[in-house]
Amino acid sequence: MRKIIIVEDDNAIPIDQNASLEITTFAWVPPAARGQVRDLRPRWACEELGLNYAERLIDASNKSKGYFDQQPMGQVPVLWDGGIHMFESGAILLHIAQKNSVLLPVDPQERARAISWLFAALNSVEPLISELYNVDGSAKNEKWAQLRKQSLVDSLGKRLEKLSCALGEKRYLEKSFTVGDLAMASVLRIADYGGSLSNWPNLTRYQKRCLARPAFKRALTSQLSIYSRWDAKEN
Amino acid sequence: MRKIIIVEDDNAIPIDQNASLEITTFAWVPPAARGQVRDLRPRWACEELGLNYAERLIDASNKSKGYFDQQPMGQVPVLWDGGIHMFESGAILLHIAQKNSVLLPVDPQERARAISWLFAALNSVEPLISELYNVDGSAKNEKWAQLRKQSLVDSLGKRLEKLSCALGEKRYLEKSFTVGDLAMASVLRIADYGGSLSNWPNLTRYQKRCLARPAFKRALTSQLSIYSRWDAKEN
Repeated sequence: MRKIIIVEDDNAIPIDQNASLEITTFAWVPPAARGQVRDLRPRWACEELGLNYAERLIDASNKSKGYFDQQPMGQVPVLWDGGIHMFESGAILLHIAQKNSVLLPVDPQERARAISWLFAALNSVEPLISELYNVDGSAKNEKWAQLRKQSLVDSLGKRLEKLSCALGEKRYLEKSFTVGDLAMASVLRIADYGGSLSNWPNLTRYQKRCLARPAFKRALTSQLSIYSRWDAKEN
Repeated sequence: MRKIIIVEDDNAIPIDQNASLEITTFAWVPPAARGQVRDLRPRWACEELGLNYAERLIDASNKSKGYFDQQPMGQVPVLWDGGIHMFESGAILLHIAQKNSVLLPVDPQERARAISWLFAALNSVEPLISELYNVDGSAKNEKWAQLRKQSLVDSLGKRLEKLSCALGEKRYLEKSFTVGDLAMASVLRIADYGGSLSNWPNLTRYQKRCLARPAFKRALTSQLSIYSRWDAKEN
């Protein structure tokens, strides 16, 4: 049985003690989930903007009642920004992006498109990818999952084909890397992990291009280092 | 074969000829989809704010290449606001809500929660409800759908239970009706349609309370009247 020390209330482990931003995530997750927990997305946004942030770690298997006041679904992350808190990684990405023009262009049309892509990633692309991840993962030995897979691959394929057409040979979905690309690449990364992007070489290249950004690499390293710290304590 | 006159480019059928907002939707959909097409959500938001808007109708079965430049997935709605356009009903809801404080409180914490709920509705609740709608609807004769249903009902039930706890006996998710309630009630409406809310009387009451708002009723009437106009032309 793994023992976890909860540091939820006032013992944030800061990457920067002076950071006014705090990202709540899980102190420990099983190896298969590492690098997939949703705090990765706001970490990436902070890294793109050069914003310092602190980590606030909670026990995934023993959430306090108070945590549900901050995150009604009991998920992570929660963002604390000075006196306010918010939940849902999409809302948090938007909040961080709105701090300056690094991830959200000033031009109203470009800004509108970037925010549209943020929602498209989360509401029009991710649900199919998540279900396929489920079908190929935790449900893979279920009869329904085996029977379901092809129709799900086909539905996802139709969306990816349209996304591939929209991207074309551009580096990013719009003129520059935006919060929309950050969300879309985060979602496509899950599909690529399962081999679902192979029919769309431009999406594969796009996703790799986004994930090659130093900010993403730092964010991923930061998330993984949480578990390394706990593993080190255990051994 | 149903004939549809496309009025996509410059022949918007205005609810108000002077409206600077235009909402693109389908000129005709099958009866089963009526009242479910996503333009309903921004219509509702416009009605809550008392904003006039025009309709721009396109042929769902024959979209122009230019339409995919506005809406890469080929879905509806698209919002035109003066010179700019955007896609994804979530992004459009947020854009409309940001015009004043009717659907987005001024207080930073309340505002952050309202936007969090908007994303929660679309990214944490709707995907499970949409898949259940699929399992009970177009896929209901498929073997996988019959085998899948119970686990999906269970997964959705866990989310609804948490949502029910967060709502408690409050009228709305936060102090007043916000864009988060508008999105959540729109999503729960699909679940209620399939009978999936019956275990949570407070969610059932909440959803009915939101849908009883005059603004929702006007939005629904407006959407349905599109099809009535086309049906009348056909007969």
